[in-house]
Amino acid sequence: MADSNRQLQIAELPTDKLSAEHFRMVEAPIPTPGEGEVLARTLLLSLDPANRAWMQGATYRSALNAGQVMAGFTLGRVIESNDPEFAAGDLVEGDGGWQDYFCLAGKRLNKRAPREPLTHLMSVLGVTGNTAYYGMAGIGKPKAGETILVSAAGGATGSVAGQIAKRAGARVVGVAGGPDKCARVVAELGFDECLDYRGANLFQALKEVCPDGIDVYFDNVGGPVSDAVFDNLADYARIAVCGQISQYNALDPPQGPRNLGVLLRTHSKAEGFLVTQFERQHEIGRARLTGWIKDGRLKYREDIVDGFENAPSAFIGLLRGENFGKRLVKVAE
Amino acid sequence: MADSNRQLQIAELPTDKLSAEHFRMVEAPIPTPGEGEVLARTLLLSLDPANRAWMQGATYRSALNAGQVMAGFTLGRVIESNDPEFAAGDLVEGDGGWQDYFCLAGKRLNKRAPREPLTHLMSVLGVTGNTAYYGMAGIGKPKAGETILVSAAGGATGSVAGQIAKRAGARVVGVAGGPDKCARVVAELGFDECLDYRGANLFQALKEVCPDGIDVYFDNVGGPVSDAVFDNLADYARIAVCGQISQYNALDPPQGPRNLGVLLRTHSKAEGFLVTQFERQHEIGRARLTGWIKDGRLKYREDIVDGFENAPSAFIGLLRGENFGKRLVKVAE
Repeated sequence: MADSNRQLQIAELPTDKLSAEHFRMVEAPIPTPGEGEVLARTLLLSLDPANRAWMQGATYRSALNAGQVMAGFTLGRVIESNDPEFAAGDLVEGDGGWQDYFCLAGKRLNKRAPREPLTHLMSVLGVTGNTAYYGMAGIGKPKAGETILVSAAGGATGSVAGQIAKRAGARVVGVAGGPDKCARVVAELGFDECLDYRGANLFQALKEVCPDGIDVYFDNVGGPVSDAVFDNLADYARIAVCGQISQYNALDPPQGPRNLGVLLRTHSKAEGFLVTQFERQHEIGRARLTGWIKDGRLKYREDIVDGFENAPSAFIGLLRGENFGKRLVKVAE
Repeated sequence: MADSNRQLQIAELPTDKLSAEHFRMVEAPIPTPGEGEVLARTLLLSLDPANRAWMQGATYRSALNAGQVMAGFTLGRVIESNDPEFAAGDLVEGDGGWQDYFCLAGKRLNKRAPREPLTHLMSVLGVTGNTAYYGMAGIGKPKAGETILVSAAGGATGSVAGQIAKRAGARVVGVAGGPDKCARVVAELGFDECLDYRGANLFQALKEVCPDGIDVYFDNVGGPVSDAVFDNLADYARIAVCGQISQYNALDPPQGPRNLGVLLRTHSKAEGFLVTQFERQHEIGRARLTGWIKDGRLKYREDIVDGFENAPSAFIGLLRGENFGKRLVKVAE
């Protein structure tokens, strides 16, 4: 065990684009767990677009402030436990933050069974896989013959969401950034088509590729991509509002077309959700995803960045969309 | 029977605010019903904000064009029928348009049983009553103790929607235009509160009147009223998107804050609907509303304008919000 705890703290809250200067590395003492607390070594740090939203103010989580350790979901191995539910050597997950060691009340941690590869616990069998599962299966409810649109199709959640819709017999169209990523979404993940949102006129491209309209929209990004999708919705469409990554760098409330009238005209439904609201059903989702991975029907990509010190640049790159699949930071073995 | 059919035609489609010059009165021959058609005398003409949306382009109805008779829902008495389902003297409803006589295929008409007052067939027991019923009971699903927000609370649909929520034991707050209308919404319809959207800072007023957030939003208007409501939604809120009257006079797609992220943060659901999608259940809604009217638990206001020639100005006034309750044009006895 090292004798200090490296922490990436928020040096200053961003008011526009997030950059490396908004973080600072400090060395703190390794904390001693108090009553009911657990000390763990961080193994993996999950980078999620929502982390950026937490820097904008209070969301479903209290706001982050300058001087705090950057928040983030982590997988760790227990070193010392004052909670009888946990023992040294256990794998635990929780909001451990960007640091080498985290100390949290046992009730804020979940124990996870080890598996190979360990990274799956933080990706397809973790929050993002479950998010994809409940957003698509529970809200989107794709049916055979329907057309499903998934934005951020090469991302951690979108890549799984699209494949779940394929399993249901639907036609799945992705939207992603850049021709290379689009090609991978089709070739590696088995989407039927993938459109580059950076290309010219997404509205027109969607109209051509989805001539009967879009029945389910799994919305990871919001903004202009959503505008183009809304104008191509089929009647009785379902929109699973999962993320709004295009908005997270914004200082002022972003403006755009007032789209709710489209819901009226097409009798459609938009439902925002957080995976935590389905917590009691997580075992169901994990069991189904595990089965699909075992028999090869679900492809999963991870984009693992080595070294804790690289977390800020890896996160900033995630917000730019440079990842393919779930981006994790490997902190320790 | 008169020997000519007065028609209000669309002289020119509006590109901005609707005004009287967009209509012209012409005299046409009374049509002769063809095979399967029914000729009826117009008794009542329903004025609905959606009529204005039809002038903006194709919606759930084909677009209206200059030179056509203005479209609108009418109640008529059959004069001559070539459809065995209908006989002279029957009451029928359908998209008869703004004219003294209408001639439509029998399959495009519904027969209605006479009742006193006849106007109820075109208001609380017609499309607007059913719209309120399914939007509130079917989508909003208010529960005792919840806070319900109804925009256009003094309008044909909002006035019923709010009272349905009261029946469910919820606290009901209206939004309407001007202090007089707000006072009537509380005094005559029994809403708990009513806020004037023309007053200063609706967001702040809603925050004070709905300190625990808004659980159900029955959205008749869209635009800035919706913005203020979205920023006051409670977790797991339900939004019934019924109308977007604030947008119907717009030429370019109206811009505003991108609100879908709020759905995500609050796990809320926005569902657009058209009453026609509940057609098979209309008898249920009507039966329930009829019962409430009988025992005095549902107050209903009608705002009846006499004289076919006054339809344009009555309609323009409706879009400005000058009506209280359902606005109808009485064309004949």
